[in-house]
Amino acid sequence: MLELLDLTQTLPRSDYAESMPVLRAELRDLQQAILAAGIPVVVLLEGWDAAGKGDSIGTLVYPLDPRGFRVCTTHAPTEDDRFHPYLFRFWTRLPARGKFVFFDRGWHRRMLEGRLEKALDHQGLLAAAEEVREFERHLTDDGVVLIKFWLQISKKEQKRRLEDIADDRYERWRLHQPGSHKDLSYRRSLEVAEEALALTSTANAPWMPIAAEHRYFHRFDLLQKLIAALRRAMAERHRPLPTGSEVETPSAEPSHLPNEARIPIPPSSRATLLDRVDLTCRLDRKEYEKQLDSLQQRLQELELECYHQRVSVVMVYEGWDAAGKGGNIKRLTQELDPRGYEVIPIAAPDATEKAHHYLWRFWRQLPKAGHIAIFDRSWYGRVLVERVEGLASEAEWRRAYQEINEFERHQTESGSVLVKFWLHISPEEQLRRFEERERVPHKRHKITAEDWRNRSRWAAYREAAVEMIERTSTRSSP
Amino acid sequence: MLELLDLTQTLPRSDYAESMPVLRAELRDLQQAILAAGIPVVVLLEGWDAAGKGDSIGTLVYPLDPRGFRVCTTHAPTEDDRFHPYLFRFWTRLPARGKFVFFDRGWHRRMLEGRLEKALDHQGLLAAAEEVREFERHLTDDGVVLIKFWLQISKKEQKRRLEDIADDRYERWRLHQPGSHKDLSYRRSLEVAEEALALTSTANAPWMPIAAEHRYFHRFDLLQKLIAALRRAMAERHRPLPTGSEVETPSAEPSHLPNEARIPIPPSSRATLLDRVDLTCRLDRKEYEKQLDSLQQRLQELELECYHQRVSVVMVYEGWDAAGKGGNIKRLTQELDPRGYEVIPIAAPDATEKAHHYLWRFWRQLPKAGHIAIFDRSWYGRVLVERVEGLASEAEWRRAYQEINEFERHQTESGSVLVKFWLHISPEEQLRRFEERERVPHKRHKITAEDWRNRSRWAAYREAAVEMIERTSTRSSP
Repeated sequence: MLELLDLTQTLPRSDYAESMPVLRAELRDLQQAILAAGIPVVVLLEGWDAAGKGDSIGTLVYPLDPRGFRVCTTHAPTEDDRFHPYLFRFWTRLPARGKFVFFDRGWHRRMLEGRLEKALDHQGLLAAAEEVREFERHLTDDGVVLIKFWLQISKKEQKRRLEDIADDRYERWRLHQPGSHKDLSYRRSLEVAEEALALTSTANAPWMPIAAEHRYFHRFDLLQKLIAALRRAMAERHRPLPTGSEVETPSAEPSHLPNEARIPIPPSSRATLLDRVDLTCRLDRKEYEKQLDSLQQRLQELELECYHQRVSVVMVYEGWDAAGKGGNIKRLTQELDPRGYEVIPIAAPDATEKAHHYLWRFWRQLPKAGHIAIFDRSWYGRVLVERVEGLASEAEWRRAYQEINEFERHQTESGSVLVKFWLHISPEEQLRRFEERERVPHKRHKITAEDWRNRSRWAAYREAAVEMIERTSTRSSP
Repeated sequence: MLELLDLTQTLPRSDYAESMPVLRAELRDLQQAILAAGIPVVVLLEGWDAAGKGDSIGTLVYPLDPRGFRVCTTHAPTEDDRFHPYLFRFWTRLPARGKFVFFDRGWHRRMLEGRLEKALDHQGLLAAAEEVREFERHLTDDGVVLIKFWLQISKKEQKRRLEDIADDRYERWRLHQPGSHKDLSYRRSLEVAEEALALTSTANAPWMPIAAEHRYFHRFDLLQKLIAALRRAMAERHRPLPTGSEVETPSAEPSHLPNEARIPIPPSSRATLLDRVDLTCRLDRKEYEKQLDSLQQRLQELELECYHQRVSVVMVYEGWDAAGKGGNIKRLTQELDPRGYEVIPIAAPDATEKAHHYLWRFWRQLPKAGHIAIFDRSWYGRVLVERVEGLASEAEWRRAYQEINEFERHQTESGSVLVKFWLHISPEEQLRRFEERERVPHKRHKITAEDWRNRSRWAAYREAAVEMIERTSTRSSP
């Protein structure tokens, strides 16, 4: 399977520059369709060291809404993983319906490494392969779209890349990660891979070998294959496919625009801190792109620095509907290594969450030391939506300001960095954006009747937001 | 606070033997009332080595329905705990409403050990105490009943017990556990404890010192204090208190007995393996009690052996309503160390669980190496209730037999012991028990309209159960 792979395939830079934006737009639209159809997607990246697994994941997640995917690295199993059956670490990290999970290495590793390290005889190999096939069948029978990429490079290219990594002060540490096999013989590892791939390439979960020798071709090919697999999955389920950027999201609630929602929102009776936000600030597009680029680079370096120094980062996004939380998070994470951060979209609590303290689910989601968690909405829901909609009693939401300050102080005193944003727009700007969302087909999924309903309570939300900011903006977490 | 504690208090054996069953019955009834009222209960056991924390937890959980409590030991934080803020390990283990969690040591440890090891100066102590008080206030404000016991023994008694432990081949390992302070000076540790207790004894979460010198008095006093605290909590919430063993469970659905439910269930048209179960087997009460005693002792030894050898045990209980799953699990666990097992009651899946593969939630609940998990109902729901009630499609439940066999084989091949029980009774016996439950007040909470409804589908459940047992009873997990 791998020996037949043509590693000389390339793609000229101009073709790459032209085709990638088209593929990205297509994948972005497909993500919405997959979400609407409730299909879980598992993408596995496998291959030996320096084959470009990290670059691949970066390429694939770039166009995605970060609220819809997670990246799992399974190089070093946690203590909890080691104390459970082998597949526990994969089962517990599977996506919910409509979401994507990208695995950086996966459930074939026991086979692959067992053979490389000669811990597994032929009988053992067959048993391990059977277990892999069973796991994959469980997933695909349940409707999971399972896509397995094997990245292959030549012996010469691998040698060159490993030398580059050893020379790079930001990358060098990767060579000393557990599961790193920089010393293996190329021929032997090719044999091991061929054997394992042959045993686990099935109709429901075939391997897709990728010629990863040339970067442009590699990225293009990956993206194209992921798109093709997703389109096939949608077609098999007889779901309408997105055409161009005209996604219809069949399961989305039809939005309607009640007339009273257009009534101008009266200004606040007292001048609040939100009134002092200068909404006329602008940045010219050229300048924006230049600054965005250099800031994203800087963030990427800082992400790695935080990882090495084991500093956790918690970011909280709150703000008006259509204020741009999603787009902001997208740009923030675009150049980050997706193995280092997670975006956590917060919706209404489920039954288990409701049976606990409201902070319980946020405690469970705090990032591990060295990782970044970005909350798209957060525990502040207690003093915003729960207050305004009467979901919390007055005693409960009044008490919450102090509870939140204490919760946050515990984090910052443990060495976490906590950053909180309120994205502010005027009611007029919100109306403009709502109407645009209704007009533009590929934005239509972003607007629902609930948004209009919330808008009609602008004044109540404004009062809650002002009080929230006044009472929870502290020196350590402003 | 501790220096005034009278450690000479005792209780004669005869008083102990007389009063304990009464207190146990009272706590048992209170648990049902707490469950019905949806009150979460957190019980903390603190004290120095050999003060009897394990014995205390054993005493308190003995009368409880094991489906309603969990025991958390926090001696050695997991890797995941260490990578998060300090309170993460406690927050994530809090009980849902209506449930109990017993903590064997807790969130005061950082203070206590920081002072013993001189890592914490006075300023640091005050900050740590403030954090403890905040955490406790968050819980009690949310309606948690928080009960903190400090177990105290004399210097002489501690010395004697530590020597006993060192001599006992089953117990000796405890002295080498992390967080064990066998070498500390009694006087210094008393000072440290006094200081910490004074700083964290608040109106909402006062410490209850227990004179743990004499075993009978200690157990009696603990049980009595827990009961008093629970009764107080119920009264404050204006909930009806159980009187004697006449618990009324106000929130339970009123059961009613449709006439057709009394119609005799026709026998199966073919003789199935369930028909071959000999339902006339009996055991005389005396003989039963003798055997139960020695088997429970044996189980206790095996639990410890499994822990040392890192063998996981998974037990699955399925069977007819009123077949006695709860009582069986109760007797199985009665003499086990509650820190080594967990009973996992399985109800209908919540929204998050429904968004995943049906096996996902069971994967997440598999026991850690060396621990025991007892499932009260299980993944077999897929081929029982989900099949009979049409909650799974025919293709889904038909496929599930193989999935279940593969899931179980993965466990047994990882070294877990898997034991599965089907508790079988005749339809006539079920009717007799249902009617008894309706008659006897303290059993009334066990019977609902749903039980009667399920009974009316006896034949469909029988068919599903027989097919399930035939298809999933394997050599490694019969």
